Amino acid sequence: MLIAVRPATELPRLRADRLWDSIHESAAIGATADGGLCRLALTAEDGLARRRFMEWSEAAGCVATVDQIGNIFCRRIGCEPALPAVAIGSHLDTQISAGRYDGVLGVMAGLEIARALNDAGIGTRRSIDVVSWTNEEGARFPLPMMGSAVFAGQLGLEEALAATDADGTSVREALAEIGFVGEEPVGSRALDSYFELHIEQGPLLDAAGIDVGVVDGAVPSRAFSVKLRGETAHAGATPMELRRNALAAGGRVIAAVDAIGRGHGWDGRSTTTRMRVWPNLTGIVPSEVDLAVDMRHSSAPELGRMVTELHDACSEVTEETRVDIDIQPAYSFGGFSFDRACVALVDQAARELGASRRRMLSQAGHDAYNLALVSPTAMIFCPCRDGRTHNPSEEVDEARAWPSVETLMRAVVARADR
Amino acid sequence: MLIAVRPATELPRLRADRLWDSIHESAAIGATADGGLCRLALTAEDGLARRRFMEWSEAAGCVATVDQIGNIFCRRIGCEPALPAVAIGSHLDTQISAGRYDGVLGVMAGLEIARALNDAGIGTRRSIDVVSWTNEEGARFPLPMMGSAVFAGQLGLEEALAATDADGTSVREALAEIGFVGEEPVGSRALDSYFELHIEQGPLLDAAGIDVGVVDGAVPSRAFSVKLRGETAHAGATPMELRRNALAAGGRVIAAVDAIGRGHGWDGRSTTTRMRVWPNLTGIVPSEVDLAVDMRHSSAPELGRMVTELHDACSEVTEETRVDIDIQPAYSFGGFSFDRACVALVDQAARELGASRRRMLSQAGHDAYNLALVSPTAMIFCPCRDGRTHNPSEEVDEARAWPSVETLMRAVVARADR
Repeated sequence: MLIAVRPATELPRLRADRLWDSIHESAAIGATADGGLCRLALTAEDGLARRRFMEWSEAAGCVATVDQIGNIFCRRIGCEPALPAVAIGSHLDTQISAGRYDGVLGVMAGLEIARALNDAGIGTRRSIDVVSWTNEEGARFPLPMMGSAVFAGQLGLEEALAATDADGTSVREALAEIGFVGEEPVGSRALDSYFELHIEQGPLLDAAGIDVGVVDGAVPSRAFSVKLRGETAHAGATPMELRRNALAAGGRVIAAVDAIGRGHGWDGRSTTTRMRVWPNLTGIVPSEVDLAVDMRHSSAPELGRMVTELHDACSEVTEETRVDIDIQPAYSFGGFSFDRACVALVDQAARELGASRRRMLSQAGHDAYNLALVSPTAMIFCPCRDGRTHNPSEEVDEARAWPSVETLMRAVVARADR
Repeated sequence: MLIAVRPATELPRLRADRLWDSIHESAAIGATADGGLCRLALTAEDGLARRRFMEWSEAAGCVATVDQIGNIFCRRIGCEPALPAVAIGSHLDTQISAGRYDGVLGVMAGLEIARALNDAGIGTRRSIDVVSWTNEEGARFPLPMMGSAVFAGQLGLEEALAATDADGTSVREALAEIGFVGEEPVGSRALDSYFELHIEQGPLLDAAGIDVGVVDGAVPSRAFSVKLRGETAHAGATPMELRRNALAAGGRVIAAVDAIGRGHGWDGRSTTTRMRVWPNLTGIVPSEVDLAVDMRHSSAPELGRMVTELHDACSEVTEETRVDIDIQPAYSFGGFSFDRACVALVDQAARELGASRRRMLSQAGHDAYNLALVSPTAMIFCPCRDGRTHNPSEEVDEARAWPSVETLMRAVVARADR
């Protein structure tokens, strides 16, 4: 089912310079010395970036609304305002040592589309919402993709507001501190559809010289909490044979986790991302180690085999070290397809633009995963240099990114006009 | 060279019940729910334990003095007070999850000797100092054996006072807070000799059913700071082949460290005790891992080979993971013999007592290591059950410990009378 896209002569002209200026201006908020960003969710910096975004969108004629979890919706009102809006969104918060495109590109691209529609004097049939979701990264408050998860009914509002950061500050307190406790009930806004443009965060598009990633669906991801329990002892006096060293056992589990990912082809991913060691003191054999393990594979059965290998590896480590190991599921996401019509529309838009494109799966978690549960949703990836991300050296070449921004605009305008 | 020990009829009669009562009473200060102790150096609990010790020693007729780093000297004045004193000492601070004998036994045994000499109306020629050294464990403030290190000129007073705990509180502030900033210049007190009774913290004496460990010297110990530097990346999107995962590399180093200790016989010890992971966040491949590695072996050349193996293992990990690894020496101790005359005196005392004894090396660091640099020094080990220590289940059987306490008394009295 193809949707009529406006002839090119009737489409707004996006301004790359303006979009990139906005990205770089926003990157001054929370800038780090190494050229990266540290703009953790609901910090003062996040508050500044949010306000800047709202000011810009209001200057572009949008109406900004904040919901109870701090999600921001900037609406460019359409010709038939009673119809559900087409949403474009992503997030303004970053990881602790991030680049300037992850999340930000998707929000600012939405803003640029609104600006370009204004420049061209075009009104779309449906309204367009440019959305910034709260705490996508989960770097300060656990529970990543928080705002979109509450929006989609995957996470209770009260549970989200009660989540605390390492200093014990709750989401509720942090929202109040930066003045982003909105009145709109979360999830009350009906959406016609949701489109998210995001950097690929992987190397495929960049390496293959492809312009646009048309995202079919989400790689299944499963995370585990692995707890190792041994016994404290003296690091000098206790013979190796008598120890139940949780960290020595943990080191072997960490190495096994890495090997499991490497043993399952190009698509295998297996990572120990976080850990805690106790008592973590000079001279003491550690007795407690907690590991956070993240496993992903495009094939769900293959992912199942990886999980089995994790269990097997831990059993073997327990047998050899006498350290008890408990494995519990932490969270899982992905393993679904995006809306066929929306994906087809993205593909069609890229093709009409003459862009090279690849159908692919998303490896990373995104707010779009939650939106897909309540609204027809599609994602677009743009190439990022060497696939580097969550790193200050994250780089997106303006020229390489441009086809994906154009694709987003064409798909959204077509959908809003339908 | 044998020293005349008083005939048994002229020796004071130690009271096991009183010593054990004192140990258990002191263990109420900083007691944990699992029956262990958490009495970190210079906390309120440590302050209470120090005051209790001073009150008891003053009640036993001793004169208590505190030096500038908070070391406590309780002097039972001898018949010729101008002569340097014979010191008995150990420490009252504990690890975070400790038993009730490590350190405490040595201090309380000194107190019991003073009490028993009083009961018997015996005056020794030289004074006897019962000493509690500040921050032996290094669990709250880094730099273990701190008080004795400053006493022996191995660590500057200012450097020690400036050391901070995890909350940023300095030793200077913590000493003031518990009222233990003394006036005596550190190290100004000349000692005739130093004797330290300590639990073995290993299983040898207990397993062999031997009463007294006569400690010849200290096992060479070398500690290293191992810093791994990779690159942050996305745990989902970044293919395994493109990662420079510092934690995956760290896991392999941790496992290698454990294997090195196991590959060098009964005496080999090799432990990763502490670690730091950065950014330690959900969804991020870690880029920085710092490891604290502790290696010990009774044979210095064998220890040298273990260190070489650590370097080799790290080189191999770097080659296979592209993670940079830097190894720097952190500290080293041990690798020396205690004073021949003092060790012979301990051996003679145990023999005359009819106790079974074993000459052995100390695997753990002790204040006696520092004292040995400025004074004739010897150590006595008593058996501890199953060699368990730095653990709430640390246990010393009164009957099994008794010969070592008697040995200490006989050696000290003989030395003080000489």
